[in-house]
Order: sequence, then C-alpha cells, then structure tokens
Amino acid sequence: MNFTIDRNVLLEKLNIVNHGLPSKTPMKVLEGIKIEVTDTDVFLTTTNSDISIEVLVKDPSLTIQEGGKTIVPGKVFIDLIKAFDSNKVTLFLIEDRSLMIKADRKEYLINVMDPNDYPTIDFVTLENPFTLNCKVLKDTILETVFACSNVTKNPMLLGVNLKLTNNKLIATATNSYRLSQKIIDVAEYPDYEITVPAKSLDELLKALEAYDESLDLNMYLAKNKLLVKFNDVLFQTRLLDGNYPDCSNIIPKQTPIVVRFNKDELLTAVNRVSLLSPGERERDKEITFNAVALKIDQTHEIELSSANNQGAGKEILIPTDIVVTEPLVIGFSSKYLIEALRVLRSNEVELSFINSLRQFTIRSVDNPNLTELILPFRLEN
Amino acid sequence: MNFTIDRNVLLEKLNIVNHGLPSKTPMKVLEGIKIEVTDTDVFLTTTNSDISIEVLVKDPSLTIQEGGKTIVPGKVFIDLIKAFDSNKVTLFLIEDRSLMIKADRKEYLINVMDPNDYPTIDFVTLENPFTLNCKVLKDTILETVFACSNVTKNPMLLGVNLKLTNNKLIATATNSYRLSQKIIDVAEYPDYEITVPAKSLDELLKALEAYDESLDLNMYLAKNKLLVKFNDVLFQTRLLDGNYPDCSNIIPKQTPIVVRFNKDELLTAVNRVSLLSPGERERDKEITFNAVALKIDQTHEIELSSANNQGAGKEILIPTDIVVTEPLVIGFSSKYLIEALRVLRSNEVELSFINSLRQFTIRSVDNPNLTELILPFRLEN
Repeated sequence: MNFTIDRNVLLEKLNIVNHGLPSKTPMKVLEGIKIEVTDTDVFLTTTNSDISIEVLVKDPSLTIQEGGKTIVPGKVFIDLIKAFDSNKVTLFLIEDRSLMIKADRKEYLINVMDPNDYPTIDFVTLENPFTLNCKVLKDTILETVFACSNVTKNPMLLGVNLKLTNNKLIATATNSYRLSQKIIDVAEYPDYEITVPAKSLDELLKALEAYDESLDLNMYLAKNKLLVKFNDVLFQTRLLDGNYPDCSNIIPKQTPIVVRFNKDELLTAVNRVSLLSPGERERDKEITFNAVALKIDQTHEIELSSANNQGAGKEILIPTDIVVTEPLVIGFSSKYLIEALRVLRSNEVELSFINSLRQFTIRSVDNPNLTELILPFRLEN
Repeated sequence: MNFTIDRNVLLEKLNIVNHGLPSKTPMKVLEGIKIEVTDTDVFLTTTNSDISIEVLVKDPSLTIQEGGKTIVPGKVFIDLIKAFDSNKVTLFLIEDRSLMIKADRKEYLINVMDPNDYPTIDFVTLENPFTLNCKVLKDTILETVFACSNVTKNPMLLGVNLKLTNNKLIATATNSYRLSQKIIDVAEYPDYEITVPAKSLDELLKALEAYDESLDLNMYLAKNKLLVKFNDVLFQTRLLDGNYPDCSNIIPKQTPIVVRFNKDELLTAVNRVSLLSPGERERDKEITFNAVALKIDQTHEIELSSANNQGAGKEILIPTDIVVTEPLVIGFSSKYLIEALRVLRSNEVELSFINSLRQFTIRSVDNPNLTELILPFRLEN
C-alpha cells in the first residue's frame, strides 16, 4: 500500500468513519480503521456493535502507487492527520507492520493490525431506496430522538420508531412518560416499520454535519438493518428487534383546555421556576425531573409554581390566547416541557389539556405535524 | 431588610462574590452570601478557607427602604438573579426566615440562614498599599501560575512566590521539574516576600475579568494575608506559611547551546510528536508528561522525536538562528514545553541549553523578563 492524498480531504473522510469507531470494545481490532487501496480507489471502514461506515475516497489529489489493505489504530491516526499542517500526505505500509505517514520534514510510523482479524461487514444489498432530503431527516431526528428512553427497561424505547404508511413517514420516540412525534409527507413507498437506536441516529446527525442540507439521502431498509447512502458514504445501523408499542391512541384528540403562549416567555418562566423544584424523582426506573405546577383558575389567571426545601417560586403567565371550560391544576416535569419547547420552532406554542391526570400536548401554533406530549405527575398536597 | 436595585448591577456584583463561595464545605452557612444593608449601602460578602470577598454595592438604581442583615444560599440565589429578565428586582426579608425576590409578575422565596452563625471576617487593616496595574497583574499571574505544583508534597509550591526588592517584583512558580519566573519594574516599596495560593490567584483572575485592564489595584500585604482592593471590592486571600525555596541560582547564566525557532512552528511540531510519546511518567509524586527527545548534531540538523507502543514520530526542525558548540540529545516533557511556549508572546523564541542533564530555558527573543525553565528527563536508550 502506497498512496498520496490532500491532507484536508483525508481528514474530512476520517471524520466520517470516526463515528463508526466503538467508544469501548474488548475487540482491539475494532479500534482500528480499515484502509483498503485498490488500483483506483481508497476505502475507509469502521464498525462497532451498532454502526458500520464505509467511505470511498475519491479526489483529484489522490495518487495510488500500490494497492493493499491494513488496519490502523483509529484514534491516534485521526489525531495525527488532524495535527498535520501539510498540504499533501503520503501513506505507505512497511512490512505489513507499520504505516508510514510522511509529509515535508515529518515521518510518523504507526503500528498496524492484521486485516485478516477484521470482521467482514455485511452491508445491505442496495435495492429500491427510500429517498429523503438531508435537512428533513436531520430535523426529524433532532425533534424526536431526545424523547427516547435511556434506561433498558423496555429496549424498544431506546430507539426512534419510523413508520412508512399512506405517503407519510411517522417518527415516534417515547420513554413512556413523554413522547415526541413528527409526521412528514413522503413519496409513495411500500408500508414499512423500523426502530433505529437513538445512539445511531446521534452519530448519523454528526456524520451529516459536514454535508450540504440540500443533499438527498438514499435509505435501504432491511429486516434488521438500515443503510443510509449519501455521496460516497455507506452508513449502516442495526435496528432494534421487537414490536414498538402502539402510540396511535395516546395523543388526545379532544381537549377542553387550550392555552397559547409566546414560546420564549414560557421557556424562560419554566426555566426559572424549575430552579426551586424538587429535583429528580424516580418513577419505575425512568428518572423524571423537576416537578412544577401549572394552575388555571376560573378567572383565567395562569400561575406557574414550584417549591423545594430551598424555597418556592411563583409566576403569573400571560397567555396569547385561551380556551378554558374548567379550572386546572397540573404537575409535570419542567425538564420535559423545556426540552419539548426547545424543538418547537414557532414564536407561539399551544398547550392542550384534558384534565390534571391525563397527558397533555404542546405544539407550534403554525405546525401541527410535530406533537410533544407529557404525562403529568400526580400532585401531592 | 428591603431594597430595590437594577438586576444587571446586582448580578455583576454577585458574580464577583461568587468567587469566594467554597466549592465544598462542611459549614453550611459558608454556602451563603451575607447581605448587609445599612441606611445608605448594601454589602455582599462571601468567604471560604482561602478567600474572603466583600463588595460594596453602589448604584443610582439602588433604593433602600429598610436596613438589615441575612445569609442567603449562594448558588440558588445567583442562579435565580441570572434567570431574571426584569430591569429591577426588589428584595425583602420575611420574618428573618425567607428572602423574597420580586419583579414584575414573579415572586421567589428563598429560605435564609441566621447571620449570627456567619464568621466574622478579619480584613487586613488598610495601610500603605503597593499599587499595580490590573493588566500587569493579570499577565504576571497567567505567565506563572500554571507552573505551580498540584500535589501537596511541598505545600509552598502550591503557590506563586512574589518578592519585592530593588524596585522589582519577582514572581516565581515551580513544581521542582519546571519553573516560570517573571520580573517586573515597580515603584519603590519596602522589601517584602509572600507566597499566594495558586487557587486564590485563579479566582482573582476570574474576578478581574469584568474590570477594565487600565484599573489600578491596591495590594495590602500582611504577615499571613494579602488584600487586593479595586473599585468597591475587597479581595482577601490567605498566604502560604513557610519559606519558599531559593530559586535564584536555578536559572543558568552560561549556556553553550542556543537555538531560536519560530514559536508557532515549534509549538505545532511538539504537539504532533507528543501524540506518539509514552504518556505520563511518575517522578516522586509530581506527574510529568509525554517525554520527547530533541537532538542537535554536528551539522546543526535538529530533530524532534518520540516513540511509544503505538508507533514513533520524527520531525526535522528549521531554526531561525543557532549557536552550538557541541552536539546535544535531551529528553523532556512535551507538556511542559507546550505550556511554556503558550505563555510566551513573541513570534520567535530562544531555547538555551547547558547539556543533556541540566535544566534549560525558553524565552521570548524580545523579552528577557519572562523565563521558562524545564528540567530534562534522563533518556533511557
């Protein structure tokens, strides 16, 4: 193996395969990046228990002297290429034991691993992709993934459920105490349902950061894998195996109490009262945070309050609009409301309640396609 | 107690006393900020085992209705005032048990502590200050404090030694494996020597961030305390008790090998080779890091190199000037060299060596008043 390439191009590609390196693994060889050089192309590959990434390196600056294959320790290799300030770098194998990285007056040798020890990665056969715009996918992930569970009580809740049906893509995430659901119009495609690990989606988001948002992504769905293809990148993740809970009846349709607020005003008020809220509260194994209370009385005065052993806070909120058929006192996690408000992008948000015991929703006034839902606490008096 | 004040002014003063709050303390009352309101003034005070800070709050926006004294839990109080978006806030005590913070449609109550439980703080009597410009002091701290020890083997090395003599202020910090010394011309003042805890200097730096660098600071020196007075702030720190080691003969005067480099080129090269250096290395209890080697041969070729179990790196350095009477191979901590180079501000730096076993210095070419010194490793071949 012997090739020369522009340092910036190499670094850009390494930054993508970086997302497929395991954070911790008992298999040393997986800490490596597979470099495979043919007569015309260079491929970089990484894999961990969730994700496999393969990048084809194509660039006018690439000159291949000799093909070959090796596994180079990922972290130190990326750190070194980052630290190089040269325009071009030359990489060649010495006796299959070290990779020499050479530029200007610099010579670095990294001990490599045997490519025969590297697992074979079985990428999904590429057929009938489902196509989605990069920005639409990024938004959908950002708007849902935070609502996933982070405890393994119900492993299916560790992922975002994606359901294709009737020209809609429905993305749902829940930890069973709050839920976030986004509905997008899509081109016709056969019905399909998968649940993608939240961690994989986080890494996909980061890998997409370097790309133009107008890019189209091709998604190849298989029984237990999802392959996302863009430019010269194959990003494959395992899927969660099991039935995702049916959430279709959880979002309330009839809500007698509807209040609208300026989003930023509500957000700063909730942030403030949560400073004097009782902190974490364990419910089954899902930690919920910072209980606060919202009270709407007969005169339509709205009060947000909290209390803990340090003190108590109380604010009167001024709604931009209100429809209330009965008074309400409801307790909920301020953390969940804050996180829900952060993904809503309009200036005005609408909170819809049934009563103090039932889940309530938060939506942008001008976009009904993203629903945030929170299950209240039972208030102890 | 009952007063009203501009929220920004209050927050600015709280941000200063914040540096006197203990990070951890068994004495609950020290987690509080003492608020003392006279007929005309408000004083805020904090104290911990190292530092005491008192701020006089003077502002046209201040209106005092009633005097009084209380101790309010520091963290939650500061967090709340930060979260307030009102122009003015009103603070008043309710039955000596809670502090009410009121603004617009917001009411927050914080449980307070008994001011009688708060320790009396003995500020240095204000006489004959030594005056120093704010920027000069900040630079001096930044250029020396990083070189202090962070292990308690020799407690005096946990501080920066300040020596006033012959119209000079000499600031010295060392962990006995590296040293940083800055010499400043100052106005006439009696000879004096103190050693200030590094932690206190870090907090002083942060407290000074909000102030104009042209400010003059008045420093009051006492046997076991230093009081720094600026604007309406009293910042007092305890001093380290003992004799600081005599470093006057440690800085070499005659050095047969002198090499000059472009600072940024040297810094990036050292950063790169340190990626393949053997990592931490314990010497007595002071951890030294990332051994690298510098080699100057007969032909004046300069090579910087490193090796560890992951690989090896080698770079040829091009000096901007060189005086060498004999070849040199010297090993040292790249971390120490990187930190030394970071505080030198010129484009060109000068490294001066005696031989491979003796300490060497790094200075700006155009400023001999700041000396960085590093003790080499004994290279194992």
